[in-house]
Amino acid sequence: MQFISEQRLDDGVLEREFTLGDIPGILWTPASVSVPAPLVLIGHPGGMRRMYPRLVGRARQSVADGFAAATIELPGSGDRPRSAALDQARADLRGALEAGEPVGDEIVDRLVLPLVDTAVPEWQAALDALLALPEIGGPVGYSGGVISIGVRLAVVEPRVSAAVLFAGSFVPRVMFEEARRVTIPLHVLLQWDDEGNDRQAALDLFDAFGSKEKTLHANMGGHTGVPQFAGEAAARFFTRHLG
Amino acid sequence: MQFISEQRLDDGVLEREFTLGDIPGILWTPASVSVPAPLVLIGHPGGMRRMYPRLVGRARQSVADGFAAATIELPGSGDRPRSAALDQARADLRGALEAGEPVGDEIVDRLVLPLVDTAVPEWQAALDALLALPEIGGPVGYSGGVISIGVRLAVVEPRVSAAVLFAGSFVPRVMFEEARRVTIPLHVLLQWDDEGNDRQAALDLFDAFGSKEKTLHANMGGHTGVPQFAGEAAARFFTRHLG
Repeated sequence: MQFISEQRLDDGVLEREFTLGDIPGILWTPASVSVPAPLVLIGHPGGMRRMYPRLVGRARQSVADGFAAATIELPGSGDRPRSAALDQARADLRGALEAGEPVGDEIVDRLVLPLVDTAVPEWQAALDALLALPEIGGPVGYSGGVISIGVRLAVVEPRVSAAVLFAGSFVPRVMFEEARRVTIPLHVLLQWDDEGNDRQAALDLFDAFGSKEKTLHANMGGHTGVPQFAGEAAARFFTRHLG
Repeated sequence: MQFISEQRLDDGVLEREFTLGDIPGILWTPASVSVPAPLVLIGHPGGMRRMYPRLVGRARQSVADGFAAATIELPGSGDRPRSAALDQARADLRGALEAGEPVGDEIVDRLVLPLVDTAVPEWQAALDALLALPEIGGPVGYSGGVISIGVRLAVVEPRVSAAVLFAGSFVPRVMFEEARRVTIPLHVLLQWDDEGNDRQAALDLFDAFGSKEKTLHANMGGHTGVPQFAGEAAARFFTRHLG
């Protein structure tokens, strides 16, 4: 991991951009750290630059709660090399949505599964590098982004001990089986009237999770309209489990 | 309204039992009140004495948040005269559940609708009396209990400005229509694996509510196992809307 830039935000948060091999990422840490901080991995749908205003908002909340926060770019997004297969799957998804057709399992699998298979080991590599920093000590939470990435991480990565998942993207059938193997505490956000999301699939996925502590928070306001109080509730979940 | 007993709880909360005509009730107020406090009406499924430990817990939370809290006994429950029709409906419900049969709409209507029709004007009368006390000023929230009573109150009683509803009892079909006319902010608690409750009906009812701000919190732990953090989240909802 190489740090390539560093700036202090107005509230004293230290924001550092880094690269991990050819993957760009951002790390946010408190103004001063006396003991190694827990870490929240900030997920997103791809396009870290485009998502920056929302990512830095979530990161500031985590840092205010005493955590470090970090994110990396997803494969095929932002400044990373495009993937022809992923672009095709995205175009097919858009085509189906615009035509008002049901989105077939085959498109969802083509869109999400390769992304999960590639992204999850990258987030794990980022975790190796981040936990090696003296100012970061764990435990680790994963927050938001493509829900299937969160599910896979929760299954395969024992260092992730709690997750806030955002039920806002298509979920391949096979992920429902993986969901049954998740046992860490989960806090799932569902935007009830998110037109681009299949509400029933989100409820089925919540039902499938094997975790003994799992909470679903459904709110109004559309895909990007998560109310501020819902963001605060998610932050309190991390404080309970990582603090 | 006549006060019939008064005691200080260990945390200084003033607990007063009262009667409103022949309806028993309990009022909890802060140790000292400088300005008239908002009021939380504490709902329950009937049997105020039996439910007392849980009711006083919720009342203490409300008082700690700066509110007064009050409850009254439901018709046909506790020390109030039994209702043969209600007892018969309860027995029929139990019979259906024990036989593993689906609970017919007819039983649910017979069980819940007369209760709603009788109880709601009683809660409104209690509201008249409580709001006439110098130490209580509003706004008013309604919390928990039989969800259909909460729905009806939210529709017909303009002094109730926010409600925490507990999706834990059978809901007559006609209440789904009333739900569409609810516009106040709602915070709905659903125990996901509550075996005595129809989860799909609870989700349908949440969907039906006309409120622009409505939040569903689903948790594990069975009918009576609402996690402490979920109770705290409900309290924060009232602080946001009544505080």
